[in-house]
Amino acid sequence: MMSDPSMLTSNKNPRIQQIRKLQRSSRSRREEGLFVVEGIRLVEESLQAGWEPQMVLYTPDLNPRGLELVERFGAQGVAVIPVAPQVMQAASDTQTPQGILAVLPWRVVKRPAKLDFVVVVDGVRDPGNMGTILRTATAAGVQALFIPPGNVDPLAPKVVRAAMGAHFKLAVEQLAWPEIRQVLARQELVSYLADSSGGQPYAQFDFRTGTALVIGGEAAGAGQEAQYSAARRVHIPMAGEVESLNAAVAAAVLMFEVARPRGS
Amino acid sequence: MMSDPSMLTSNKNPRIQQIRKLQRSSRSRREEGLFVVEGIRLVEESLQAGWEPQMVLYTPDLNPRGLELVERFGAQGVAVIPVAPQVMQAASDTQTPQGILAVLPWRVVKRPAKLDFVVVVDGVRDPGNMGTILRTATAAGVQALFIPPGNVDPLAPKVVRAAMGAHFKLAVEQLAWPEIRQVLARQELVSYLADSSGGQPYAQFDFRTGTALVIGGEAAGAGQEAQYSAARRVHIPMAGEVESLNAAVAAAVLMFEVARPRGS
Repeated sequence: MMSDPSMLTSNKNPRIQQIRKLQRSSRSRREEGLFVVEGIRLVEESLQAGWEPQMVLYTPDLNPRGLELVERFGAQGVAVIPVAPQVMQAASDTQTPQGILAVLPWRVVKRPAKLDFVVVVDGVRDPGNMGTILRTATAAGVQALFIPPGNVDPLAPKVVRAAMGAHFKLAVEQLAWPEIRQVLARQELVSYLADSSGGQPYAQFDFRTGTALVIGGEAAGAGQEAQYSAARRVHIPMAGEVESLNAAVAAAVLMFEVARPRGS
Repeated sequence: MMSDPSMLTSNKNPRIQQIRKLQRSSRSRREEGLFVVEGIRLVEESLQAGWEPQMVLYTPDLNPRGLELVERFGAQGVAVIPVAPQVMQAASDTQTPQGILAVLPWRVVKRPAKLDFVVVVDGVRDPGNMGTILRTATAAGVQALFIPPGNVDPLAPKVVRAAMGAHFKLAVEQLAWPEIRQVLARQELVSYLADSSGGQPYAQFDFRTGTALVIGGEAAGAGQEAQYSAARRVHIPMAGEVESLNAAVAAAVLMFEVARPRGS
């Protein structure tokens, strides 16, 4: 392997310290307006979506596809920094880093002017569930996903991994409830609260007109604000009395119920 | 806290060693016909379903609901063993054990004689996905779930946790492909292979007659045997060209598509 005098070998380097902070702390991410994306596939998707990283770290043992990515960033004038494997390990949120990591300025994908399919998540604390909801929303054709306070930070590393690039395609917006209600009203969306214990079965609704799904979290179900913001209640009929669904699964079933008559 | 002379304080104890092996090794589970269930809720569900544990471990700091469970097992003649917290930690598959753990003989829930909704999973390697599929199947009214070779062991600890008690309600059967095909043929089920890259959109099928869904895993998609075993191909239409769904999410959307016209 080539020996590169510019290779970063110390975890004490201020850039590495900055990245570790961004990985750990939602407050740092918010204050700096930055988040971290790891792995060839996700970094590639950010490039395809036209996002410009603040910097890119890579280890020299990166595979050809990854090195090509690094070259393209370099040609664009992005700071590309070779690092020793132990430095990548320190900067990474994963046990087995893939050898490339990008620090990206957060910007919200612009939502369409006219909305007819919106999702609001409420009280989703599990990062894997949040990421899966974002991924599913993109595939179901959701146009904007609103995240009020009380949910896990959508830029947390595990959310970003599970979302598989949704952040680059879907309008993911952290908004307060009053703003959310304003958008729903202005867009004349009918809002449906997913409610495991009440409301009508989902097959009884016609979701072809403008729809906002308000989807609750794992444990407590929907909060006060969510209940106040939704006009109707909808549930997924289940086989057993005591059954329940994982939050991301319930969200998926409802999102595709809305997408179903619109698609194909 | 009471000092109990019968309390197990050594991780070297053969029972603890046995449990550790059951947690780690699918081969041990298969050879001994045993698996491990952790936490009050799951142990409670096993009791409600009438399963009799080989033994139950608990820590004396267990909450009243848990201690009541322990008492009920004791009254049934089950070996209930108080253990020190560090012993529970050693026996547990989780970082923060809930203070109760049961070793259960594995038995398959009996499937109905006449089947009209069956799921076959193929190449699901991720334990969280497998567990979520089992949980969702129970809620969607699936009558039997067949697991051919090439999937993660459905009795692995993470699967059991994510399945939230599905093992006690749903016929979860590890069968070879020829046996699976035999059941599908005898029951005159129409089999549908979930295929992200082909087939007809799911909304075009009428799933009200006897249905077997063959659902592929995360990465490679369906294997040879799965393709050979399914009469039709079905896909979930998605908004973007390059989108994909998490395996458990895709399974959920299809299972509820089958349940939808039957339910409510």
